[in-house]
Amino acid sequence: MKKLVNDPNQVVEEMLDGMVAAHGTKLKRLQNTSVLVRADAPVQGKVALVSGGGSGHEPSHAGYVGQGMLDGAVAGEVFTSPTPDQVFEAIKAVDGGQGVLLIIKNYTGDVLNFEMAAEMAEAEGIKVAQVIVNDDVAVEDSLYTTGRRGIAGTVLVHKIAGAMAESGATLEEVVAVANKVIQNVKSMGMALSACTIPAAGKPGFELGEKEMEIGMGIHGEPGIKKSDIQSADTIAEILLTKVLDELQISPTDKVAVMVNGLGSTPLMELYIINKRVAELLREKQIQVHDTFVGEYMTALEMAGCSVSILHLDEHLTELLDARADTIAFKKW
Amino acid sequence: MKKLVNDPNQVVEEMLDGMVAAHGTKLKRLQNTSVLVRADAPVQGKVALVSGGGSGHEPSHAGYVGQGMLDGAVAGEVFTSPTPDQVFEAIKAVDGGQGVLLIIKNYTGDVLNFEMAAEMAEAEGIKVAQVIVNDDVAVEDSLYTTGRRGIAGTVLVHKIAGAMAESGATLEEVVAVANKVIQNVKSMGMALSACTIPAAGKPGFELGEKEMEIGMGIHGEPGIKKSDIQSADTIAEILLTKVLDELQISPTDKVAVMVNGLGSTPLMELYIINKRVAELLREKQIQVHDTFVGEYMTALEMAGCSVSILHLDEHLTELLDARADTIAFKKW
Repeated sequence: MKKLVNDPNQVVEEMLDGMVAAHGTKLKRLQNTSVLVRADAPVQGKVALVSGGGSGHEPSHAGYVGQGMLDGAVAGEVFTSPTPDQVFEAIKAVDGGQGVLLIIKNYTGDVLNFEMAAEMAEAEGIKVAQVIVNDDVAVEDSLYTTGRRGIAGTVLVHKIAGAMAESGATLEEVVAVANKVIQNVKSMGMALSACTIPAAGKPGFELGEKEMEIGMGIHGEPGIKKSDIQSADTIAEILLTKVLDELQISPTDKVAVMVNGLGSTPLMELYIINKRVAELLREKQIQVHDTFVGEYMTALEMAGCSVSILHLDEHLTELLDARADTIAFKKW
Repeated sequence: MKKLVNDPNQVVEEMLDGMVAAHGTKLKRLQNTSVLVRADAPVQGKVALVSGGGSGHEPSHAGYVGQGMLDGAVAGEVFTSPTPDQVFEAIKAVDGGQGVLLIIKNYTGDVLNFEMAAEMAEAEGIKVAQVIVNDDVAVEDSLYTTGRRGIAGTVLVHKIAGAMAESGATLEEVVAVANKVIQNVKSMGMALSACTIPAAGKPGFELGEKEMEIGMGIHGEPGIKKSDIQSADTIAEILLTKVLDELQISPTDKVAVMVNGLGSTPLMELYIINKRVAELLREKQIQVHDTFVGEYMTALEMAGCSVSILHLDEHLTELLDARADTIAFKKW
C-alpha cells in the first residue's frame, strides 16, 4: 500500500484536523466528534442541511460545507457509515430554529443511522426531515444497498437544496426542492482500477490489466459488467445513454452535466470524456446550462469516472446558479 | 496503460475541446491552435498574462485563465514545450495595448520557445516581458532544466501577478510583483508512483513497491533520493524543512501554504500532510494567512504531493486575497 498516511487507523481523525487547519475561517470541528460545521453555525432563522457518510469520497461531504450548501458534514470511518450519535451531534450544532434536513446517500447503513439520529433529535424537539439520494442508475440493489445507490448527483442536491435554504425557505419547501433534484438527477460510473482502504492495506477487488467495469459503485461494489477497456468516446456513450434513458428530456430542455473523477483519473481524461458527452447532447439538441468537470465524489484513488445529468427547469436553474462559498464548490 | 482516451496522439486536442465545451462562457480556443484565452480577450487597457507549458499538469494552466489571473494558456503536447508560434498566437490574441507578461516555468525548452515567441511579438510592436519561475528547491539542474525547476508555486505567481494586472498596473509593475512572488515562493515535491504519457503507453520510470522519491519533478525527473516510504508526518517535515531553509521567515511573519496533489493522491492524504505542515508552522510561530489543498499542478496520474510556501508581505497578501474567477481557482 503506497499512501501518505501515519497510522492507517487514524486517517479520518487526521484528515479532519488537516481540513480545519486549512480552512479554519470556513469550518469548525465539533469537539470529540467527526463532525465539521460552518464556522458561523448555527445560522439562526435558516433551515440547516446535514450530509455525510463514510470517508474516502472527499471532497464529499465536508468540502461542501459553507454558505449556500451544507451546514454540517459527518465523516464515518473510510467507506463506513457514521454512527447515529455523530449525526445527532451535527443536527444539534447546526439547528437554527427552522429545522434540519438530512441528505442521505442510499446505503443501508447510512439510511439506518441517519434515521436513528433524526429520531434522537426529534425527541429533543428539533424538527428534522430527510431525503435519500439514489441517482446511480447502474444497478438495483447491491452490496450495502437496497434500491439504487447515491453517488455524485448528491453534490447537486447539496447545491440546490442549500440555495433554497439560504433563500429563507421553510423546511417543507427545502425538502420539496431536494426531492425534485433527486427525481431529476441520474448518474452512472465506471472504474479502471480498484482502491485500497488504508486500514485494510490491500485493494478491495481486482480488475485485470486490460479490464474495466461499468456501473461500479464508489466503494468498489459490483456494477453491470466487466469488459475490455473501451475508448473514452465509447465509455462516454455507454454512461450517458443509460443515464438519459432514465430521464424524460426533450430537445431544447436544459441540463447540468457533471463529469466526476473517482480519484486518480487525470483531469485531462475527464475533459476528453466531457468532449463526447457534450457532442452527444448537442446531437440530441439538449441545452447544457452548466458543466462541472473534476473530483466531486471520489473513491479514494480509484481510476474511473461517473457522468451525471440533472434535468433543469427555471427554478432549479436559478438555485443552481445561486451563490455558494464552500471549499470545493464556489459560485457567484 | 489504463486510461480514458481515444487516440493517444490526440489527447491534448480532445482535452482542449472538452474544456471549451465545459467552460464556453469563460474560455475560447483560438482556431487551429492549442491556445485557450479568456472569452472576453483581449481586455483593453489591461496588462495581459500568458502562461503554458507541456500538457499533463492540469488544471495548469488553462484552469487559471479568467478574471484576476491569466489571459491565455498555451498547451504543448504532454510533457513537451509548446512551440514558439503557438505562444505567439496567444500573445497576439490577449494583448490589450498595455503589454503582455509571459510566466514561464523554468524548463529549458519552455524558456527557449517562450523567448522566441516574445521576439516574434516584439517585432510586431507588442510589448512583452517575461518572468521565469524556479520554485522547486529540490535540485539544481535536472533533466530538461538548467537551474531550478518551476512547479506548483507558479500558480501563486499567476494569482498575484494576475491581481496586479487587474488593478490597472503597468507591465513594469506587474513584472516587479511577479518577481517578488518568485523570490518568495519555494516548493518541493515527492512521488510514490510514476505516470504514463498516453502516447508512450508505459511509465516513464519505476519506483519499487515500498519506495518513494523525494524531490522528484513533475515529469518524473530525478529528485534528491529514493528511500523506503516514510510516514506522512515525516514526509511533511522533510519537504517543509527544505522549503523553509530557502526563505527568510521570522516568527509572526505571514505565509500562504499550498499542499498540491500530483494526480492520484486522495484529498484525504493531502489533508493529512497539511495537518503536520500546519503544526510545524505553528511551532515556529509562523502565521498561516491562507492554505490551498488540492490538485493545482499535477503530473498526470502520479501519486505524491508537493508543499509550497509563499512568504507574504502586506501587498502580496492583498493581491492574493483579491477576486479571481477561473475554473480552478476562485476567490472573492
